[in-house]
Amino acid sequence: MNPKITRFLENQALPTPYLVVDVDHVEYRYQQLKTQLPQASIYYAVKANPAMAILERLVSLGSSFDAASWEEVELCLQAGAPAGGISFGNTIKKASAIAQAYQAGVRLFAFDCLEELEKIADQAPNAQVYCRLMVENKGAEWPLSRKFGTTLDNAKTLMLKAKDLGLDPYGLSFHVGSQQTSIHAYEAAIAKTALLFTDLAHAGIDLRMVNLGGGFPIRYQEEVPEIDQFTSTIAQAMTQYFKNNIPHIIIEPGRFLVGEAGTICSEVVLTSQRGIPDGPKWVYLDIGRFGGLAETEGEAIKYQIETPYPEGDMVSAAIAGPTCDGADIMYEKTPYQLPIQLKSGDRVSLHSTGAYVSSYCATKFNGFKPLAEYYI
Amino acid sequence: MNPKITRFLENQALPTPYLVVDVDHVEYRYQQLKTQLPQASIYYAVKANPAMAILERLVSLGSSFDAASWEEVELCLQAGAPAGGISFGNTIKKASAIAQAYQAGVRLFAFDCLEELEKIADQAPNAQVYCRLMVENKGAEWPLSRKFGTTLDNAKTLMLKAKDLGLDPYGLSFHVGSQQTSIHAYEAAIAKTALLFTDLAHAGIDLRMVNLGGGFPIRYQEEVPEIDQFTSTIAQAMTQYFKNNIPHIIIEPGRFLVGEAGTICSEVVLTSQRGIPDGPKWVYLDIGRFGGLAETEGEAIKYQIETPYPEGDMVSAAIAGPTCDGADIMYEKTPYQLPIQLKSGDRVSLHSTGAYVSSYCATKFNGFKPLAEYYI
Repeated sequence: MNPKITRFLENQALPTPYLVVDVDHVEYRYQQLKTQLPQASIYYAVKANPAMAILERLVSLGSSFDAASWEEVELCLQAGAPAGGISFGNTIKKASAIAQAYQAGVRLFAFDCLEELEKIADQAPNAQVYCRLMVENKGAEWPLSRKFGTTLDNAKTLMLKAKDLGLDPYGLSFHVGSQQTSIHAYEAAIAKTALLFTDLAHAGIDLRMVNLGGGFPIRYQEEVPEIDQFTSTIAQAMTQYFKNNIPHIIIEPGRFLVGEAGTICSEVVLTSQRGIPDGPKWVYLDIGRFGGLAETEGEAIKYQIETPYPEGDMVSAAIAGPTCDGADIMYEKTPYQLPIQLKSGDRVSLHSTGAYVSSYCATKFNGFKPLAEYYI
Repeated sequence: MNPKITRFLENQALPTPYLVVDVDHVEYRYQQLKTQLPQASIYYAVKANPAMAILERLVSLGSSFDAASWEEVELCLQAGAPAGGISFGNTIKKASAIAQAYQAGVRLFAFDCLEELEKIADQAPNAQVYCRLMVENKGAEWPLSRKFGTTLDNAKTLMLKAKDLGLDPYGLSFHVGSQQTSIHAYEAAIAKTALLFTDLAHAGIDLRMVNLGGGFPIRYQEEVPEIDQFTSTIAQAMTQYFKNNIPHIIIEPGRFLVGEAGTICSEVVLTSQRGIPDGPKWVYLDIGRFGGLAETEGEAIKYQIETPYPEGDMVSAAIAGPTCDGADIMYEKTPYQLPIQLKSGDRVSLHSTGAYVSSYCATKFNGFKPLAEYYI
């Protein structure tokens, strides 16, 4: 584990649960990505973790930002980001939010349907717009393909319409799904995008940007491909499909930049087999699905759990949160093995919890306070 | 709809989304339950909605309270509840939380395993304890049976042990699952409980209380049986299985008391078919699974949605929240029909949202503020 975080966790006086994030590690990941894919502009997906310490660090590195709401646009501005470096990437926006962002100087907006395009034309005249395509999400542990994106045919119609509405038809985007573990996921999507670039060029519209979305995976329980495998596949596909006319590339990493930078410190509230012969050892932590670990829904994201007992006998465990809610079970089918001695009062660490955790936390479910956060 | 709520919703100046709760309706439900099952003590399940206005009204009516955490115990005390009228009903408690509740005067604690019983014995000497049994949750739309409760055999061992540990082995509890629509759900559980009462009496332990948990359903899309059907089935089963030796009865309604008292006012952010032939009309609201509607997970709870267009053509709709999260879809499989004219900017009402909504809301996911709440 990260030595800065290890030292921080040694302070046993801090009440659990809490999240500690090493902001230097966020910088390390940012630089790594910048080095591997220098031709791309990095727009950090603020929703992954909107902590001011992270935003400020990324501003200092020259990052741009992908905002999901007017409130996230505001946060970026507060952190010192120039409005020109903010993309309003949610395809679902209130007219008032578009207007607020536009008045603050934001000029780049996503959409995936005519209704949204018309709202942007009304509220953000002359803005740059990009249309989100529906693409395959196979290989992603947290898919995004049902709710967002449109067909190639419709996207073509919409980009032509964008011009008619006085907007700047700037580019196309897609998202291969979050925690995407297949390095080939981007290729087909890039091919599809290139096809539409050509098609629209014939119709008199010269697009200039491809937004590859996010999706780069991080290490939870399982090893994942290194980032250079993704970036080289992407660079090759861009050259293959766009030839010597490669457009401006935007990427929107969230999980990849901040996930591995964070660790949650949690206390075991109770362990018991509850008198059920052949049942698992139930381990109830003081954080659960409603305290931030929302991505354990359907046991999708499998966090690595470190206990004070690295040696010794292990038993099959079911792992649940501290609330009275029957749905507050993180892992029951996933084969977790935990130490037989693990007991009430022990502290455990949940690794790679820097992204998509703190902001999901419920305000007060079962009376529990929101997750405490420390940025070091 | 409730006329008080209707009048409140007419104020179009309030920003959405918000929840409005008619506290008089909570009182109405409390009195109804009290009348139908006068032999039972009502312990309101605070987690359903911990708003001070609700707690204070229930205190004024003489209600007792079921708390899930030390923080919920504190809330009840702040609302004026006597400590003797509070049950610490979560079977998963930190030792420190037990100690805090005990010091504040709470004397009634739930458990379902030896490890928890020992914590209670250490932190709350002489307290009354009750053991939660595992029972069938068939018929419940929000089941609770995997995470909580123990076997009859183990419960017997534990109640004997409770006495050895200097605790008062007071009773037994179970939970037939939340939003339980079968009026027969309680019978088998009561029979099981009575069996253990007899068994323990032979072993020299006279239990004096049965906690029937919650579970009474409310009306969402579908009609549910009236409360008197549940209470009369319960009363009959208690007489049948306990004969002339009926113990003190505790019930823990949450949803039943506050669910129908609440309505959410939400704005349609976007509607679109996204160019997908034969696809549903996608309706994106400004509240979703992470803004409070957590019980739509797996499309379990199906809220009734009222639009400004009661007449006219309807189309199949998929209904989603406003975030960039692909999991933020409320209904895709459930056959919702919504008006063809429904569009961005329209206000809709989601009924029966007084329980298990506001407290589930995320602190800041995608930058959105927590749900505003009004108690009238």
